[in-house]
Amino acid sequence: MTSEYAGSWASFLGPLGENGELLERWVVDAIRSHVYWRRNFHPEDPPAIPSMARLDPEFQKMVVKTEHALHRLDARLKRSVPWFSPRYVGHMASDLMLPGLAARILATLYNPNNVSEDAGGPAVSMELDVGEQLARMFGYATEESAKPRAWGHLTSGGTVANFEGLWLLRAVRLYGPALVQAVHEIGGTLESELLEKQPLLKASASQLIHLSMDRVLQLRREVYAHVLSCEDPELFEDFHQRCEEARCESMGLASFLAQHEIAPPVVLAPASAHYSWTRAMKLLGLGKAQLWSVDVDDHMRLSPTALQERLDQAAAKDIPILAVVAVLGTTEFGAIDPVHKVQAIREAEEAKGRGFALHIDAAWGGYLASIFRQEDGSMVPYKKLRRQFHYFPSEDVYQSFAALSKADTITVDPHKLGFLPYPAGALVIRDRETAMLLSEAPPYIFDGADASPNQADLSHLGQFILEGSKPGASAASVYVTHQVWPLHLGGFGQIMRRLIMHGERLYELLRSLARDLEPHAILAVPFEADSNLICLGVNPLGNTSLAQMNRFTRALFQAMKFTAHEPLQTRSFIGSFTSLSSQRLTTSQSERIFKMFQLDTDSFEKKDGAGQDHIFLLRHTLMNPWLSPSYDGAMDYLDAYLDFLKDRVLALLRKGPSAWDE
Amino acid sequence: MTSEYAGSWASFLGPLGENGELLERWVVDAIRSHVYWRRNFHPEDPPAIPSMARLDPEFQKMVVKTEHALHRLDARLKRSVPWFSPRYVGHMASDLMLPGLAARILATLYNPNNVSEDAGGPAVSMELDVGEQLARMFGYATEESAKPRAWGHLTSGGTVANFEGLWLLRAVRLYGPALVQAVHEIGGTLESELLEKQPLLKASASQLIHLSMDRVLQLRREVYAHVLSCEDPELFEDFHQRCEEARCESMGLASFLAQHEIAPPVVLAPASAHYSWTRAMKLLGLGKAQLWSVDVDDHMRLSPTALQERLDQAAAKDIPILAVVAVLGTTEFGAIDPVHKVQAIREAEEAKGRGFALHIDAAWGGYLASIFRQEDGSMVPYKKLRRQFHYFPSEDVYQSFAALSKADTITVDPHKLGFLPYPAGALVIRDRETAMLLSEAPPYIFDGADASPNQADLSHLGQFILEGSKPGASAASVYVTHQVWPLHLGGFGQIMRRLIMHGERLYELLRSLARDLEPHAILAVPFEADSNLICLGVNPLGNTSLAQMNRFTRALFQAMKFTAHEPLQTRSFIGSFTSLSSQRLTTSQSERIFKMFQLDTDSFEKKDGAGQDHIFLLRHTLMNPWLSPSYDGAMDYLDAYLDFLKDRVLALLRKGPSAWDE
Repeated sequence: MTSEYAGSWASFLGPLGENGELLERWVVDAIRSHVYWRRNFHPEDPPAIPSMARLDPEFQKMVVKTEHALHRLDARLKRSVPWFSPRYVGHMASDLMLPGLAARILATLYNPNNVSEDAGGPAVSMELDVGEQLARMFGYATEESAKPRAWGHLTSGGTVANFEGLWLLRAVRLYGPALVQAVHEIGGTLESELLEKQPLLKASASQLIHLSMDRVLQLRREVYAHVLSCEDPELFEDFHQRCEEARCESMGLASFLAQHEIAPPVVLAPASAHYSWTRAMKLLGLGKAQLWSVDVDDHMRLSPTALQERLDQAAAKDIPILAVVAVLGTTEFGAIDPVHKVQAIREAEEAKGRGFALHIDAAWGGYLASIFRQEDGSMVPYKKLRRQFHYFPSEDVYQSFAALSKADTITVDPHKLGFLPYPAGALVIRDRETAMLLSEAPPYIFDGADASPNQADLSHLGQFILEGSKPGASAASVYVTHQVWPLHLGGFGQIMRRLIMHGERLYELLRSLARDLEPHAILAVPFEADSNLICLGVNPLGNTSLAQMNRFTRALFQAMKFTAHEPLQTRSFIGSFTSLSSQRLTTSQSERIFKMFQLDTDSFEKKDGAGQDHIFLLRHTLMNPWLSPSYDGAMDYLDAYLDFLKDRVLALLRKGPSAWDE
Repeated sequence: MTSEYAGSWASFLGPLGENGELLERWVVDAIRSHVYWRRNFHPEDPPAIPSMARLDPEFQKMVVKTEHALHRLDARLKRSVPWFSPRYVGHMASDLMLPGLAARILATLYNPNNVSEDAGGPAVSMELDVGEQLARMFGYATEESAKPRAWGHLTSGGTVANFEGLWLLRAVRLYGPALVQAVHEIGGTLESELLEKQPLLKASASQLIHLSMDRVLQLRREVYAHVLSCEDPELFEDFHQRCEEARCESMGLASFLAQHEIAPPVVLAPASAHYSWTRAMKLLGLGKAQLWSVDVDDHMRLSPTALQERLDQAAAKDIPILAVVAVLGTTEFGAIDPVHKVQAIREAEEAKGRGFALHIDAAWGGYLASIFRQEDGSMVPYKKLRRQFHYFPSEDVYQSFAALSKADTITVDPHKLGFLPYPAGALVIRDRETAMLLSEAPPYIFDGADASPNQADLSHLGQFILEGSKPGASAASVYVTHQVWPLHLGGFGQIMRRLIMHGERLYELLRSLARDLEPHAILAVPFEADSNLICLGVNPLGNTSLAQMNRFTRALFQAMKFTAHEPLQTRSFIGSFTSLSSQRLTTSQSERIFKMFQLDTDSFEKKDGAGQDHIFLLRHTLMNPWLSPSYDGAMDYLDAYLDFLKDRVLALLRKGPSAWDE
C-alpha cells in the first residue's frame, strides 16, 4: 500500500471538496440510470408530461420559481455548521462517508419505504443484512442455525432505538406472570399437566420477572409447544388470547402491577447516561423516579460497586429491576462503561434469582467495536491490538467490548461514528425470538422447537418494530458503506483507529500545553478519555472561585462557538462545551476535580446561585479524519488547535477578568 | 394560463423521467455550490486530501470498489416498487415533488441535525416555519400575539407523531392532580391563598383530568404566577420541584393512578384507526385494553352515536377519558371522520365536567386541508368549493375540515400526500405552551402572563419533542415544496383537487363497469369514498359463499401484486388489497355488505375457518397526478385500468373456480 490513508482519501468529499468530481459523477450516473429505469416500465405509453411542456410559459415560470426557492435554500444552508472541516471539533458529526452519501442520494430517487417488502422492495433485505452486520460486529451469532439468533434494524436515531430497546425488554420481563396467569385461567387437565412439567410456573411474579431473557423465551416456547401438542386449535387460540390479554402490553402498567402485587420496576443507568433515558421512562409510563442513577468513577464510567449497592437496595425493598443500561461512549466524555463487570454482576444476581436485562447504549461508541473484530469475526487478540495504539484500549475497555455479545439489546447510530447522513440509528437484538412479543401478528405457528420469525416474516418489518413508514434510503446508505468499509479492524476499524489516535495525540499535546501554561493557568482534563471525546477546563492561576473559572472557560469558548448569525469565517476552530452539574458528581469526584484546578470546595453549590452549580468545560469530539496530516505537506490541525488555544488563554489572561463576561 | 396542468408538469420527474434534465441540473448545481461553500472556509489551508491522491493505486481501487457497490445497489433497487408510474395504484406513495426531492438532496450535502440550532443551523428555523404553515392550513393561529399560538415540527413519520401526540395529551390531562398535590404539600399561607383564589384546586382528581387543555394551562399559569409573585426564589424552586415530582411523568402511571385513586384512563378511536394506536397504547404503558374501539358508520366514518355510547359507558364506571382520536383519511378507505360532530360532543361533555383531548390522525388526509383554504388563510366558501368537483366535499366532510382548528393535536405526513421522500411526518399542536410540559428544561421564567416558549427556546427543538437527532434535510424538503406550492386552494390544493377528481372519476367508471358486468358478476364499492382511496370487491354471479368470493377477488389481485421476484414488466397495473375483518364490522354493516354482494350471511365467521373471517377487497390509492390525461394525446390510465379490470374479471370467470386458487 502506497499510503495507509489512500483508501480513505477516496471516501470523503474533503474539506475543500477535493472529491467533488467523484460525487458529481456518481450522482449524475444515479439520476440517469434511474430515469432509464423509469423508461423501461411500459415504454409504449406516451409521455404523461408532454414534450411541448417546456414551451409553456407556466412551465417555465414554475421552473424559475423552483430554482429561486432552491437557490434561497442553498444560500441559507451556507450558514450551516461546517461539519466537514478539520477545524470543527464540536458535536458528534463530521464529513460524510462518500459511498454512503452517494448511496443515500441514489436510493432517495427510488424512495423505498422499509415498513414492509411490498413498499421497500429490495431495500428491506438490505436493512436486515445491515442489522446482521452490526450484530456480528458486537459478537452476536447470526447464522441461520444459531440459537439465539440476533437481528437488527434501523431507527430514526439512537433516541428511538433506546425507546424501542426498553419497550422490548419490558415486554420480555413482564411476560412470565402473564403466561402463568393464562395457564391458571385455562385450568383443567392442561393446567395440571403444565404445572407438573414446568415447575417455573409455580414461581412468584417477582421471581418470574427476574428470569433471564433466555429462560423466559424457553418457558414460553415449551408451554406453547405443549398446548400445541394437544392438537386442539380452539384450545390453542383460547390459551393464546388469554395469555395476550394477561400481558402488561394489554392490561397497562397500572393494572398489571396491581394484579401481581409488584412494585413499579426500576431501570438503572449511570449518572452519565443520555437524557433520552429520562424521556424513555416518561414515555413508557414507568416514571422518571424509577430511573435510578448509578454513580460513575473517576473515568466517568459506571461504578460496579455503586451498581451493586443499587441492586442490593432494590432487593431489600423487593423492587423489581427491569434493566440496567451501560453506556458505550458517553455523550459528554466518551467513557466506556465496564460491560464485562456489569455482566459478571448480572450472572451473580441471576444465580440469586434477581436477574435483569442488559441494554447497551452504544449510540456513540458502537462503531468502535469494528476495531476489535478480525475479518473472520473473532476478537483481535489484546496484545495485537495494543500495538496499534499508545494507550488504547485499556484492559477494561477491551473486556467491555468483548462482553457486548452477552447484552440483550444494543443501540448504535450509523449517523454518528458511521459517518452517514441523518437519519440512521439502529437497534440490535441478541435474540430475534423476542420480536414475536412485539408483533401484532397472529399467533406464530410453533413447530415445537422454533418460535423465531424467519427472514420472510421479518420482511414485514413494520410489524416487529416501533416505527412505521421508514426510509429505505437509510438502509441503502449503511449497506453500501459496510460493503466498501466492512466492520472489522482491516476495514472500518482503520477509520476508527485513526480517530482514537487523534484522541491520544490531543491528550498528549494538552499535557504539554498544560506544562507550558503552568505559570499562568491550570489546564486539565478532568476525566481521562476512553475514546475520542476529550473535555478540558482552564483556571487562571491563583483563582479559587468556581464561578470565576467558569467565566474564564466560557469566555474561551466564545471564540469557538458556532453561530448562524455571524460569518463562519470569523471562526478559526469550532468546538462545543459541557456543564458538569453538581447534582451528578459524587463528593469524592468533585473534591478531586476541585483539587485539580485548585478551587475552593465551598464554592460548589447544589442550587444555581452565581454560576457555581456546575463546572463548565470545553468539549472536543474528534471525528474528522484529517486532524493529523495524511501526507507530507498537509496541515496538522491538532497542532494548530493547540496554538490557537494557547493564544486565546494568554490573550484572555492579559485582558483580565473584566473581559471574561462577553 | 395555457394549461391548468403546466405548473405541475414541471414539478414531477415524470413516468418516463420527462424532467430528468431539470433534476440533473439542479442536483449538479447543488453539489458544485456545496463544494464552493467548503472552499470558502479557510481557503488558506492546504488540501487535506492531496492533489496527487488520484494517482495512488489504492485510491483508484477504492473508487472502483465504491462504484461497484453503487452499481450493485442501483441494480438491486431496480426491483423497487414503481411508485412513479400512473400504473401504480397501490399504497400511499407516488412520484415525488421535484422541488422537494431536489431540496432534500441539496440539504443532505450539508447534513443539518435539527435537534438544536447549533447542529441544524438554519434548517431548524425552516422546520419551525413548516410547522406553522401546516398549522395555518388546519386553521390554527400562529401570529406572535395569538393565544393559544400553535406550533409544529417534523417527526420520522406518522407513527411517531401519534406516539408523541398521545404522550403530550397524557402529560396535559394528568397535570392537574399533580399541581393540586404540590399546592397541598407546600402548605402554609401559600396553600391557603391559592385555594381561596383558585376554586378549581379543590376539585377532585377525576374532575381535574376532564378539564379542557385551555383550562389546565390557564390554571398552571395562574398558580405559577401567584407563587412567583411571592418573590421568594427558594419557595418557587421548592414548589416547582414538588409539582414536577407529583406528575405522572415522574411517578409513573401505576403510582400516579393509585395515589389519586383513578381508574386507568382510556383512549377512544374508531374501529378504522391505524395499528399505530394499539402500539401507542402498549408503548405508553396505558395498555391495549384501554384503547376502546368506536364503531364506524356505513361510510367507515366514526359514528357519533357510538362515540356517545362509549363516553356514557366510561362515565357510568367513572373511567377517565384521556383522548378521542378522529381519523382524517383512514388507511384503508380514506374515510373522513366527522370532526365537527366529535367536537360538538366534546363541548357538551366539557360542560358536564367530562371533557377530553382531541387528536386528529391526519397522516393520510392532512394535506387535503389545502383544498379548503384561501390564500388569506380563511376557509373557501362551501358553494365555491362544490363547484370544483362532482361530489366532493360532502357537507360533513367540509364541516370536518372546518373543525380541525378545534383539535388539540394533529398528525400529518408530508411523505404521504405531500409527495415527499421518506422520512417526513409531522405533529402540529394547537397550543405551544404545552411544550413546557414535555421539556426537561429548567422552570420557565413566567412573566405572569406568558408561559409559552418563544422561537429562541424552540430552536432547542430536541428539548420539546420525542426524538433526538433528526434530519434537517427533511425540513428543507418540506420547506421548499411549500414555497413552490403554498398550502391553499390556488397552490398545493390544485394538486389535491386533481387527486380527488381522479377518485370521483374512478367511482363513476366503476359504476358503469358494474353495470357492464351485471350478467356475470357483482362488482361493488362497499364504502363510498370520502377522498381518493377506493376499495372494491367482485363476486361471481350466483355465488353465495364469502370464501369463494374472497378466492375470486384474491385471484384478481394476483395479477396486480407487486413482487420483487418477477420482472416488473409482467405487470400492467399494480394495486394493493385490504381485508375487512369480521371483528371490526358491526352486524348491520356486514349484513349490508353481504346483501350488496348477494352473499349468504351465515358464511361470515368470527374466527378464521376457511377464509371466511374477512372480506378481501382490492384497494386503490389514487395519488399519481397523471391518471387522467393532462394534454391531448396523453394516455387515460383510469380508462385503461377499467379495461384491464374487466378483462381480468371475465378471463377468471371463463377459467372457472379451479383457476382461482393460484
